[in-house]
Amino acid sequence: MTFDSVAMTTLVPSECKQETVCIFGTGDFGRSLGLRLLQAGYRVIFGSRDPGNTALLPEGSRVTSHAEAIKSARVIFVALHRDHYPTLTPLTPALAGKVLVDVSNNLKRGEYPQSNAEHLSRLVPGAAVVKAFNTISAWALQSGALDASRQVLVCGDSAEAKQAVMDIAHSLGLMAQDRGSLRSAGELEDLPLQLLPLWRLPLRIAAALLAFFFIYELVRDVVFAQVTEGKDKSFRIMISLANKIFPVVSLIMLALCYLPGIMAAALQLHNGTKYKRFPDWLDRWMLCRKQLGLVALALAFLHVLYTLVIPIRYFVRYKIAAITISQIRENKTKPFDSTLAWRADSYYSLGILGFGLYVLLGITSLPSVSNSLNWREFRFVQSKLGHMTLLLCTAHTFLFGWDKFLYAATYKWWMPPGYMLALVVPCVVLVPKLILMTPCVDRAVTRIRQGWDRPTGSGTQKKSRKSQQPLML
Amino acid sequence: MTFDSVAMTTLVPSECKQETVCIFGTGDFGRSLGLRLLQAGYRVIFGSRDPGNTALLPEGSRVTSHAEAIKSARVIFVALHRDHYPTLTPLTPALAGKVLVDVSNNLKRGEYPQSNAEHLSRLVPGAAVVKAFNTISAWALQSGALDASRQVLVCGDSAEAKQAVMDIAHSLGLMAQDRGSLRSAGELEDLPLQLLPLWRLPLRIAAALLAFFFIYELVRDVVFAQVTEGKDKSFRIMISLANKIFPVVSLIMLALCYLPGIMAAALQLHNGTKYKRFPDWLDRWMLCRKQLGLVALALAFLHVLYTLVIPIRYFVRYKIAAITISQIRENKTKPFDSTLAWRADSYYSLGILGFGLYVLLGITSLPSVSNSLNWREFRFVQSKLGHMTLLLCTAHTFLFGWDKFLYAATYKWWMPPGYMLALVVPCVVLVPKLILMTPCVDRAVTRIRQGWDRPTGSGTQKKSRKSQQPLML
Amino acid sequence: MTFDSVAMTTLVPSECKQETVCIFGTGDFGRSLGLRLLQAGYRVIFGSRDPGNTALLPEGSRVTSHAEAIKSARVIFVALHRDHYPTLTPLTPALAGKVLVDVSNNLKRGEYPQSNAEHLSRLVPGAAVVKAFNTISAWALQSGALDASRQVLVCGDSAEAKQAVMDIAHSLGLMAQDRGSLRSAGELEDLPLQLLPLWRLPLRIAAALLAFFFIYELVRDVVFAQVTEGKDKSFRIMISLANKIFPVVSLIMLALCYLPGIMAAALQLHNGTKYKRFPDWLDRWMLCRKQLGLVALALAFLHVLYTLVIPIRYFVRYKIAAITISQIRENKTKPFDSTLAWRADSYYSLGILGFGLYVLLGITSLPSVSNSLNWREFRFVQSKLGHMTLLLCTAHTFLFGWDKFLYAATYKWWMPPGYMLALVVPCVVLVPKLILMTPCVDRAVTRIRQGWDRPTGSGTQKKSRKSQQPLML
Repeated sequence: MTFDSVAMTTLVPSECKQETVCIFGTGDFGRSLGLRLLQAGYRVIFGSRDPGNTALLPEGSRVTSHAEAIKSARVIFVALHRDHYPTLTPLTPALAGKVLVDVSNNLKRGEYPQSNAEHLSRLVPGAAVVKAFNTISAWALQSGALDASRQVLVCGDSAEAKQAVMDIAHSLGLMAQDRGSLRSAGELEDLPLQLLPLWRLPLRIAAALLAFFFIYELVRDVVFAQVTEGKDKSFRIMISLANKIFPVVSLIMLALCYLPGIMAAALQLHNGTKYKRFPDWLDRWMLCRKQLGLVALALAFLHVLYTLVIPIRYFVRYKIAAITISQIRENKTKPFDSTLAWRADSYYSLGILGFGLYVLLGITSLPSVSNSLNWREFRFVQSKLGHMTLLLCTAHTFLFGWDKFLYAATYKWWMPPGYMLALVVPCVVLVPKLILMTPCVDRAVTRIRQGWDRPTGSGTQKKSRKSQQPLML
Repeated sequence: MTFDSVAMTTLVPSECKQETVCIFGTGDFGRSLGLRLLQAGYRVIFGSRDPGNTALLPEGSRVTSHAEAIKSARVIFVALHRDHYPTLTPLTPALAGKVLVDVSNNLKRGEYPQSNAEHLSRLVPGAAVVKAFNTISAWALQSGALDASRQVLVCGDSAEAKQAVMDIAHSLGLMAQDRGSLRSAGELEDLPLQLLPLWRLPLRIAAALLAFFFIYELVRDVVFAQVTEGKDKSFRIMISLANKIFPVVSLIMLALCYLPGIMAAALQLHNGTKYKRFPDWLDRWMLCRKQLGLVALALAFLHVLYTLVIPIRYFVRYKIAAITISQIRENKTKPFDSTLAWRADSYYSLGILGFGLYVLLGITSLPSVSNSLNWREFRFVQSKLGHMTLLLCTAHTFLFGWDKFLYAATYKWWMPPGYMLALVVPCVVLVPKLILMTPCVDRAVTRIRQGWDRPTGSGTQKKSRKSQQPLML
Repeated sequence: MTFDSVAMTTLVPSECKQETVCIFGTGDFGRSLGLRLLQAGYRVIFGSRDPGNTALLPEGSRVTSHAEAIKSARVIFVALHRDHYPTLTPLTPALAGKVLVDVSNNLKRGEYPQSNAEHLSRLVPGAAVVKAFNTISAWALQSGALDASRQVLVCGDSAEAKQAVMDIAHSLGLMAQDRGSLRSAGELEDLPLQLLPLWRLPLRIAAALLAFFFIYELVRDVVFAQVTEGKDKSFRIMISLANKIFPVVSLIMLALCYLPGIMAAALQLHNGTKYKRFPDWLDRWMLCRKQLGLVALALAFLHVLYTLVIPIRYFVRYKIAAITISQIRENKTKPFDSTLAWRADSYYSLGILGFGLYVLLGITSLPSVSNSLNWREFRFVQSKLGHMTLLLCTAHTFLFGWDKFLYAATYKWWMPPGYMLALVVPCVVLVPKLILMTPCVDRAVTRIRQGWDRPTGSGTQKKSRKSQQPLML
């Protein structure tokens, strides 16, 4: 059995200068890291409680006792479980001045009151503990399948120790990023445990709305026709129905992005200050606005595709041919309706422009794009263009409805069509937004957001506000 | 009134080690920063000229005089207006060795000859001045709505001082980026004042071209029909007209991306050297090529959507039904025209391939993608694929026109259709480009770009050029 | 002839503090760098073997001998060819403590056994050699056309020396990134020589498959009709044929992304360990999975556009009108086929949902997005959503085929349609994947990937595996 692993084309072992690195723990992560270090030209010594057992360790590495292994290396990777950290306490004198790299993760968030790295730092006081490599998986290290994050996040209290660890990361072909002092270790340890935390609420909202509107439209379209006319329209589920619920949920979710902003402004106006805490649910809502918007964009994208396949559908082609044939048979042609042409074209045009802005918003929310914008530009794009998108999409829906709300046939079993329900939330956003944009209200909100406080009338306050104005954009 | 603000889920206050940070200025930015620092577990002391007034300050912070506040902190945030900087001069002896963080911004660019941070550094010579946090807004700090830039750009002359500030930024859950010495402070102060500066020229060009072609096509399509035939074709504005002006302006703007490259090569060939300065307008033009291209891509995207909705339009369905009905009534069917099928399909196919490359160009201009390309790859994509896109889109337009230019009916009131006008600029780019690609011209341009200079014949020059060749890609 | 070059709007020369920088070599790169440094406010001295020849050097710079130039500068850019490095050896005493920046590149990879920078470091032992600026081209430096990479990658053994070079990079408006010690220099020197290396294999596979299916479908569609019916269907090449080969190749390539994962799991199950090396071809294949997937996405994108233009095509409109007319003439209308409506709509719906997920996969493979995901999230998206995409697209293809495989007319000259061939590879992936997902097999694979080794039964091994479990995600 050979232990040399995948060929890492990017790693050229340099012969000249061989640094020695020590790894405590012969588990999977330790072995994978050791292999990778050997490939990058390091000398690797494993520290083990059972140095006789060299099975599975990468070829070219040595195994000794912990105490022995420390001697020749400055950097020691601690690939042990937190429960075994106390076994290092007796080594404290020998570990003084060494760099201890804590690579551990926990099984769930908040498992321990103190982060593993800070715990280690307390147990071995003389050593410079650095938290790193915990965001890289053993599988990734070994297979070289580093399409995912090549970022090694590093934190620690000693700048030199961090630099040493970052140099090793660079040698392994990874990117290192300094994340501050050891007090950030808890945050780094929580990172690999997350599974898209900010996406959960938006995805749940989307799922609930989609389920509701699916059943609602199923009753209106399929069940109603079955019951009242005895027609089987179930084939409509796949496209016609989907193309009703996707735009409806997309519009509602887009409006939900901008609703908390309206509510926050209203609260601030009511309280007369921005220094009063928002309710928790509003905070949580505001933190996932980006994700709400991106889910809305994904649904809008599906709506566009579902709309564009309409003319290739068998059902549509059949219906159009049937209409043409009946016109011929009855020998009468409907005259061209110019108003209908205006309305239909406007409806499509607004939808296209709205979708174009929607996509633009999506692009600017890509991390690399939003990072290249300053705060003023970001607010311009996300707030101005965002409300414009909402306005266009709402107008698109209104034009789609047009005067249908006047006819009784629209309300099957007294149920209005889904798009009418969908218009409620956007209107709840757009109408107050228009009010907030009127000069007098806008001035009041701006003053509050610049730190102005209604009841206070002291001179100091006024002066201080003025002196800070340039800092506000 | 409570002062505890939004729950920052990512910030876990660590109890163990409490660093003290001082903030000068009790304005909005100072208060927001103080609140955030307290949440992250720091001890915060405000320095104020009026220490008695603690209204509005975050709970848990202390307020003292400036002189008193300095004593217990190493890092001092200066959240004062530039006009108040001179009040710090008396504190110079006490501030020696301290880290002064200048967080200020100006109201407009170039307001002062020297950046605020350099000004502060001159007023308080013993302190290590660091420019930072000016790109983060108070509102963002306080609301935790850091979807926008979480990047704290830091510059300063002392590496240790910068490190201390970057550690604080990391503790607040922000990303810190080192931007060099204090001489970069002016640049950092200008950053938050910009509103998409490189986008202005391209957007103005797009707006001007769109307005021109809108009026032009309005006259050709709507006014002409109204005047000569008395028909109201105004409904065509929403889609038919839009779908004429978007592709036309898109093609012109794509060609405008590549025109300055042609002009620069021609100038260099004419001058026989690359060491002669280009005219200013050419420089400005070259700097916004990327933005020109992205605006062109956005218009092309709209053109694609406007084209794909054609078959669902009421007007189109009406017309197709009318044609079918008239064929039946007159009892004659047109034979299938194989040439027309070839031409129409080629026209669509070239358009699709051109748009595909267009999107590829757009993706490679995303910051994170272009940063992962080396110079050779970037030039390959942007230059080779860019010219290929232009060629495909121009051919698409030519095939659309085909032989229409031969018929008098095409020229309503002697005005050629917009797409004919649109072909002028691409041809002005593509024909010289083909000439520049011929071996003899290509060799001359390459030599000039590698630093070769026509009139000079000295041995040194030749040798030096040869020795540097490997540096040129 | 004036030497002042393009106006760099972002560079504000600061008058106060003028640092002196020395450049060895008056070639193109040296001159361009010198010009840029002068614009940024540095004093520039060129070191030349022929100090009398100042032709072409930027105005404001000085030229002296090498020995003279060193005296006033701490940072020296070595813009010489590697062959001329030995001329610096006599200067070793004077260069002690200086920062030597190696900016060189080679003409091809692996030209020399040791990187240029390490070679320089050996020739001038006392100096702190830093590798930097080799990824920036002279043309880019001079024209300011830094749309491409503004990243200066820096490596070296001295932290202070690196910091000095990074400060200069920042002053020039560039981004600097630390890439570790001087042993990374070889990697940095190889970077500018690459031309999309990971894209070659996927693009070749795509080209080969496209060529094969083009000829295959050409014979089936065009040649067959010509030979057996004497009909000229050559116009079908542009869209109908293209829209057959693009989806077919896209589906095969998507399946090829997930095939190596299946093979690796099978190999590991067979070997009973993950510590056995995969064959080289499998490694290479696994490394370019992302690129395979993105090429597949590009082809799927073209397939979508080719499908959506179907109803605007002249051929399609002609055919639909002909069918309607013939229905009228023969006075019989086909009844509406509800099963066909279900099948056709399901087929489109699955295709749209599959494409939606496809696009989502593409977005998450953007560097800035994948960097913001942790390993667990990345695997969730790429593996779970990836296999779901493959499943949807395969089902889409099956529904397209439906029962056509039963009819002899489908097999022209015994050749099955392309989409039937395309289904082979996805099935080879999906069927074993389903087997691997069964609980018992899944448990075995998971144990192996967590470092478990079949034949070993020692207590240490078991304990060590358990203690490392938290590290595995």
